[in-house]
Formats: sequence, structure tokens, C-alpha cells
Amino acid sequence: AGDLKAGRVKAAQCAACHGIDGMSKLPEAPNLAGQTEEYLVKALNDFRTGARKNEMMTMMAKTLSDADVANLAAYYHSLGKQ
Amino acid sequence: AGDLKAGRVKAAQCAACHGIDGMSKLPEAPNLAGQTEEYLVKALNDFRTGARKNEMMTMMAKTLSDADVANLAAYYHSLGKQ
Repeated sequence: AGDLKAGRVKAAQCAACHGIDGMSKLPEAPNLAGQTEEYLVKALNDFRTGARKNEMMTMMAKTLSDADVANLAAYYHSLGKQ
Repeated sequence: AGDLKAGRVKAAQCAACHGIDGMSKLPEAPNLAGQTEEYLVKALNDFRTGARKNEMMTMMAKTLSDADVANLAAYYHSLGKQ
């Protein structure tokens, strides 16, 4: 499992669209707060490999390591228990 | 915008994985409750066109009309104000 605190630091680069609180700041960006960790890991990895494509997310995901993915998923999962 | 009540009826076929309440019933399925409507419409349409691929969702999305997509997005967006 990822490191929540490291995830929060890394999430600074996600916040303009997804919020540091995991709540979408623009309609085309999904809310992430409380999302299942497994889904978040898969989504980021699919953007990294190109299995899933999105102009912004493809670019952002390229900057992430395996540890970053785990940490971000842990962080956003931990937020906003729905 | 979609029809919430029609969306709720159609959501019966989504509920085994995503919950009739929009809360994931298995780790690989994302929560949908309160998700942005625009994101939900895009996700379903991407599965319909094949732009996005997932064994289960590709199959399920093929059963949906444009109206179904709008109604389901309206329904799941309306749930669980996060």
C-alpha cells in the first residue's frame, strides 16, 4: 500500500483539476476522493502505458513512478469517505 | 440533461459492481456516486466507441443508447453528494 503523506505531497500537481481534496475543479475531471485504491492505481497505470488516453492525463502520468502511483492512490482513496 | 428516474431504472444492470447507491461493490469498480456528469458521459461513450477498453464495461456499454448514457450519468451524479 502507498504512503499517504508522500501521496499528498505529490498530489500538488493533480490539484488544479482534481482538487487537493479530491473534488473535481472542472467538469471533465472526475472526483477522486474516496475512490477505490485499486481503480486509481489501474487508471494511472493505464495512462502511463497508453492503454487509456487523455491529453492531460497521458502527460501527467508520464511523470509518475510506481511509488508515486501507489502513494497517490492511497492518498485520494483516504479522502472524503463518501 | 438526463432523466434521474429513468437512470435509476437502467442502473439495475450496473448495481452488481457499482452499487445502486453508486458505491463500489468490488475493488476494481470505481465509485460513481456524485461523480461529475460530464465525466460519466465521457466514460460511457468512450467504452461504447472502444476509445476506452474494459472487458466488462465494453460489453455493458454496448447495451446503452445515448439517452441511457445521459440518464445514468444524471442518476449517479445525483447520488451521495460527497
